[in-house]
Amino acid sequence: MIAKAPRGTRDVLPGEVHKWLYVEDMFRKVCRNFGYGEIRTPLFEHTELFQRGVGETTDIVQKEMYTFEDRGGRSITLKPEGTAPVVRSYIDHRMYAEAQPIKLYYITPCFRYERPQSGRLRAFHQFGIEVLGSEEASVDAEVIAVAAVFFEKLGLKGLELRINSVGCPECRKEYNRKLKDYLRERLPKLCQTCNTRFDLNPLRIIDCKEEGCQKVLEDVPLMLDNLCDECSRHFDRLKQNLDLLDIEYMVDPKIVRGLDYYTKTAFEFVSKDIGAQGTVCGGGRYDGLVEECGGPDTPGIGFGLGIERLILTLESQGIDIARPENMDIYVVNIGEDAGSKALEMVYRLRVSGISAECDHLNRSLRAQMKYADKMNARYTLVLGDEEIKNGSGYLKDMRTGEELKVALDVGEIRETILQKKGRN
Amino acid sequence: MIAKAPRGTRDVLPGEVHKWLYVEDMFRKVCRNFGYGEIRTPLFEHTELFQRGVGETTDIVQKEMYTFEDRGGRSITLKPEGTAPVVRSYIDHRMYAEAQPIKLYYITPCFRYERPQSGRLRAFHQFGIEVLGSEEASVDAEVIAVAAVFFEKLGLKGLELRINSVGCPECRKEYNRKLKDYLRERLPKLCQTCNTRFDLNPLRIIDCKEEGCQKVLEDVPLMLDNLCDECSRHFDRLKQNLDLLDIEYMVDPKIVRGLDYYTKTAFEFVSKDIGAQGTVCGGGRYDGLVEECGGPDTPGIGFGLGIERLILTLESQGIDIARPENMDIYVVNIGEDAGSKALEMVYRLRVSGISAECDHLNRSLRAQMKYADKMNARYTLVLGDEEIKNGSGYLKDMRTGEELKVALDVGEIRETILQKKGRN
Repeated sequence: MIAKAPRGTRDVLPGEVHKWLYVEDMFRKVCRNFGYGEIRTPLFEHTELFQRGVGETTDIVQKEMYTFEDRGGRSITLKPEGTAPVVRSYIDHRMYAEAQPIKLYYITPCFRYERPQSGRLRAFHQFGIEVLGSEEASVDAEVIAVAAVFFEKLGLKGLELRINSVGCPECRKEYNRKLKDYLRERLPKLCQTCNTRFDLNPLRIIDCKEEGCQKVLEDVPLMLDNLCDECSRHFDRLKQNLDLLDIEYMVDPKIVRGLDYYTKTAFEFVSKDIGAQGTVCGGGRYDGLVEECGGPDTPGIGFGLGIERLILTLESQGIDIARPENMDIYVVNIGEDAGSKALEMVYRLRVSGISAECDHLNRSLRAQMKYADKMNARYTLVLGDEEIKNGSGYLKDMRTGEELKVALDVGEIRETILQKKGRN
Repeated sequence: MIAKAPRGTRDVLPGEVHKWLYVEDMFRKVCRNFGYGEIRTPLFEHTELFQRGVGETTDIVQKEMYTFEDRGGRSITLKPEGTAPVVRSYIDHRMYAEAQPIKLYYITPCFRYERPQSGRLRAFHQFGIEVLGSEEASVDAEVIAVAAVFFEKLGLKGLELRINSVGCPECRKEYNRKLKDYLRERLPKLCQTCNTRFDLNPLRIIDCKEEGCQKVLEDVPLMLDNLCDECSRHFDRLKQNLDLLDIEYMVDPKIVRGLDYYTKTAFEFVSKDIGAQGTVCGGGRYDGLVEECGGPDTPGIGFGLGIERLILTLESQGIDIARPENMDIYVVNIGEDAGSKALEMVYRLRVSGISAECDHLNRSLRAQMKYADKMNARYTLVLGDEEIKNGSGYLKDMRTGEELKVALDVGEIRETILQKKGRN
């Protein structure tokens, strides 16, 4: 057990890390073009932040958090999601006193104690953005656009954007009454989970994936048909803005996000490629959250996007992220003098920006060539007594087999490699 | 408290994150040129890994770990350091069966429950590298060279490399006897901490920072004078290799690393700039660690480097890491039609790779200009009814005040900005 990663966690190994770096770079680029700044919050927070900022009635808070006491007796929790910590930071650093809106993005691990299953880890990773300080529907459209453009730049196909409005506390009060009246008489036909949600979070019942429940709920009253004027206008403006940006969407009145503090806009990008677990990105507006966490009344909106699932979706669509070339040159050495010379030459090449390698295990010539091949070295150079005496050797292109005579001079070798790689 | 980051943790905000990205990019570049692949291990491991892989007698394991039970009753610990998890991964993924050595680097948060003080956080971040599977001194020199080249590329000055050998279990047995004989009679004059270390980890006593202890220990027998032939030859080869690469060092026989499994080479890069907390990077060989963690007998060596302290050192040396330009263009709008036009134009510019922004708060012209200035936008473009009628406007360079007439065409505006920025 000591030599096993804890259940629900996994290592990202060198053979796949280039995929992570690629999507991270792309996410950073898109966010920057949209005017978002990166924020990095700690891996854990005071537990109370998530109880308040995610909501006591949610699955996350009720049974999925990694919560523990630190050595000073404080209850702390590994972040189960990215929004509450950003809101905490917004309040903590009094960003509400700066020019609004504040636009932030993050790349972070998250932790939820769930039953491990394919594509669902206990330690997973998220991209996310948050905009704090504007309630304009143009911001809602922008947040959605960040995700849409990110997916487009990655070449992802077949994602469907679904939007909804979950109203505001004002219109939801009236609607909740209607909803509960409707649900109350149907409770015996609904599943166990739905029954436990009836008192705490009836809106989530609409979201139930059980087929039986979906049948019962066919004519359930929908929030979207019960919006107040302000929420209704806001939703119209969102749709106008999405039209303006040529971003396709469908209205799906059954989208309700899991967290308590969502208001107005809720949206999801759904992929048809990975089955029931199809939501690649979800987000929405949370105009009550900053105040709930102890800050001034401030509107906000954002999304979260699971990196593991994103990479799975890329792979399932056959989108190939090329692994960068490992190694420009491997210097093979024969004999002790050549060993020192190789070590020095490789070092100078590395310092000059060339990725280079030599033997560290006193391998035979043959074994060194095999290793160079395994490491996918683009060039090799054999160094023996003769080469050292002559001050020259042969640079071999491992792809074409072509050999080129070069002086044993770091500058010359570097130039030759850079020219042939077309970097210069 | 809910809106405060937990004690000993801090947010990295957009205004400083460019420094992190800069050192991370540089570290990745140097590691790649030296043939290292990136590995990302989970934030927590089974507690036993650190008890074994760091050592029961160390301060870290005795009092600094963030250890807790997860909901399944397993004892897990947030990583206090980076080496043991990499060793665990090496065993877990059977990397010992691949071509050796395995060369890995990482960028990771670490967690230690210490008294918070300047430059020392409970949640901090580390760069590190590990080479597994070669005991050659050329690898020791290479590992040191990675750190040296990284510091050089960053422009850091005044770092002193100190090296030592802490021997192997063979020669240390004899030496420990000698050391304990010497210490035993001086125990009453040594501090409390030294006394507790006498039985568990006498080598660490040499490292004590108390002035009184240092005086008592003036003629303490040193490991370096008591190496076996093999360890002595290995240390000589290390010095020869460092000479070959023109890497300056001083031999400091008082360097003993804190962890139990170090063997042979131990080294530190020490800065004279930040006082007593001067070690910027520390590392060494740990030929017993893989086996201790349940893998086959495998040599290893690596280093760790605190990112917070690195950035402090860069700052204290006045090394300026330029903040990249925030925003290429801010589109100011007057009136509702212009608002939609601005939104669309800004969106198209962003998609085409230009960072662009417009108003989301129905601000006045004046307030929008002020915001553009605050956001450090390079260009502004005012959009009103007249500009929309004419299909053209003025691109204003916010640095020079120069104004240039442009068509309200995303392609033209993009080209103009790229040309003027000299990117094209």
